[in-house]
Amino acid sequence: MKGVLCLRTNARLIDVAHDFPRQDVRVTAFWLREVLPYFPPAVHLVVVDPGVGTDRAALVVRAGDHALVGPDNGVLLPAARALAAERTDESAGRSDEGDADENVEVFTWEVDDPASHTFHGRDVFAPAAAAVHDAGVANAGTLDRATPTTGHTDLAFPEPEISGRDDGAESEATGEVLAVDGFGNVITNLPGTVLDDRFSEDVTVNGEPTPAERTYAAVGPGERVLTVGSHGSVECAVNQGRGNEVFGLSVGDRVRLVW
Amino acid sequence: MKGVLCLRTNARLIDVAHDFPRQDVRVTAFWLREVLPYFPPAVHLVVVDPGVGTDRAALVVRAGDHALVGPDNGVLLPAARALAAERTDESAGRSDEGDADENVEVFTWEVDDPASHTFHGRDVFAPAAAAVHDAGVANAGTLDRATPTTGHTDLAFPEPEISGRDDGAESEATGEVLAVDGFGNVITNLPGTVLDDRFSEDVTVNGEPTPAERTYAAVGPGERVLTVGSHGSVECAVNQGRGNEVFGLSVGDRVRLVW
Amino acid sequence: MKGVLCLRTNARLIDVAHDFPRQDVRVTAFWLREVLPYFPPAVHLVVVDPGVGTDRAALVVRAGDHALVGPDNGVLLPAARALAAERTDESAGRSDEGDADENVEVFTWEVDDPASHTFHGRDVFAPAAAAVHDAGVANAGTLDRATPTTGHTDLAFPEPEISGRDDGAESEATGEVLAVDGFGNVITNLPGTVLDDRFSEDVTVNGEPTPAERTYAAVGPGERVLTVGSHGSVECAVNQGRGNEVFGLSVGDRVRLVW
Repeated sequence: MKGVLCLRTNARLIDVAHDFPRQDVRVTAFWLREVLPYFPPAVHLVVVDPGVGTDRAALVVRAGDHALVGPDNGVLLPAARALAAERTDESAGRSDEGDADENVEVFTWEVDDPASHTFHGRDVFAPAAAAVHDAGVANAGTLDRATPTTGHTDLAFPEPEISGRDDGAESEATGEVLAVDGFGNVITNLPGTVLDDRFSEDVTVNGEPTPAERTYAAVGPGERVLTVGSHGSVECAVNQGRGNEVFGLSVGDRVRLVW
Repeated sequence: MKGVLCLRTNARLIDVAHDFPRQDVRVTAFWLREVLPYFPPAVHLVVVDPGVGTDRAALVVRAGDHALVGPDNGVLLPAARALAAERTDESAGRSDEGDADENVEVFTWEVDDPASHTFHGRDVFAPAAAAVHDAGVANAGTLDRATPTTGHTDLAFPEPEISGRDDGAESEATGEVLAVDGFGNVITNLPGTVLDDRFSEDVTVNGEPTPAERTYAAVGPGERVLTVGSHGSVECAVNQGRGNEVFGLSVGDRVRLVW
Repeated sequence: MKGVLCLRTNARLIDVAHDFPRQDVRVTAFWLREVLPYFPPAVHLVVVDPGVGTDRAALVVRAGDHALVGPDNGVLLPAARALAAERTDESAGRSDEGDADENVEVFTWEVDDPASHTFHGRDVFAPAAAAVHDAGVANAGTLDRATPTTGHTDLAFPEPEISGRDDGAESEATGEVLAVDGFGNVITNLPGTVLDDRFSEDVTVNGEPTPAERTYAAVGPGERVLTVGSHGSVECAVNQGRGNEVFGLSVGDRVRLVW
């Protein structure tokens, strides 16, 4: 893919990640949503493509000053909304996606009979990304191969359930694991705000008492901690250890906090 | 190695791969042959070097508009022939190597007593690559350290055996596993053309009936499939699974197809 | 982190390593000391930071024409001394650190309430590296956020014990494992000079007879060998195998050579 890009464009190449879980559209969509808003305007080439070679379409998505290129399986859309949302440097990665949709345009990309049925990253998406780069993101829709569509696959992350009582007594929040990072930190869809002003209170995570702290190192090495991760959401972590193993949590698992 | 290159040349650096199997000259030679023809003219620095520090030579190989720099253990030659073969963008990676030899020149590279006997990537090959880059690939042979040679180590991949019958009855093809990719797809030396017009026929792989399909996703998740991979050769794969584990195949193993 | 850098500076980005052992300050400090002196002047951004979010300071260290940016846990200092030592290209990576201290300046870097308590690589160190790059390394100390300090955490590697006898009889050297490289080679703090002129003598490593050779391939595949690695120190290795497993050695273990 890098060869194809170098052959067709003088664009600067930045390696963002080569270690997303293979074939995992949903976890990749999560990471792209969190990471790409930190970049300046760019063409983001995304290849997590379990349906390669089938009749799923190739997409070019314009999202504000950015473009995303990849398969029509939903992987691009959460990041597209995050990129399109009005944002400042400080709010990168944690914008709500309110009015973002109107700043997102989705195009199918016409595919010739490709050189392979098994590696569209090289044969379809890299050439498309080079073409979009050289035309300019704003002109992506004017390219001959681009056709506006609204029939693409979307992907949304589940909403957490958060309940409290006005009397200040026990409240709870139930969410889901969206990803596990390279350190084993368990990233949930629970907003970090549920911990606001509650860092000294007793809380259980799926029934196990766990201290809520601002930093990993606030607990001893090897100890469990509930914290707010760099993506603004609640994380189940272990100081200098692997939270996923100690909490026994994987992507898709339910996480219930009770105070 | 990157530091040495940055210190000696302003060349643009592209990371191609850091995860070839350690010490495995043959598998690396395969991947380089498949991947490098997709790049524009460049100096390709290759360090898979189990004989580091012995009296094996250092080589600079000119292959068309490209150069390769690395140890004299055969790892450079299959890629050199592929790079030297007349090609179009579309044929990259699947040219036969017919008249390529005459467009390949091999030079030994004179080595000073190096700073180490254990890391020639840093102490020998990176400085050589920088020198070749700055002189220009076409002038590699004019550099003082370069001496033409024909006594270098070569490496060839085995040829498959393909037989059929004029009466249209059973035919077979026997090949070998050349590599297993990061997804577990088993890449053989059998040309994809053996599957031409035969995607609906019954075929066995080492005795096991296996559907031949154009895409991984043509079979259900976890199911075996015989397909033509992105390198133009027959692959034994599992949709969203690891073909090497399900087929029980490793590099060097024999693969026999019978229709 | 790359996004933040791209947004704030036009600096060229070079990926040095993403695979240091997580949270391991000491092993990372070793590798940085060995690797960074091969680079031309640069701002080196280092994030191995088990204390992220605590009150440990952020540091900017000027070391000759280089700068290092990272957490105040000692990880930057061995490399800083190596970078500051007068050196030639040939001596890179093996300078003694004699008068280097006077060419090293350490500054704490003032941190705003960051966007996270858990990812200062993105929220603190990458912005600091961009600022130092754009101001110029020589001007790092003039930046508003930089305050000279001498109260930072330092980190030193243990000294080996080397003893001999004037009568030429048995001598010994006792050191420690500093790191294990990706091939499994065990890198000690014993200087390679203890093997000078002694490559034909009998030596034991923790009691086991082991040949001392200049190259890995001087012994048969799978056999133990004592050699001088590319960092100039004694390595316990196995030709085409993993020295750490065969010698049973890990970081911090004691290594005793007896002739």
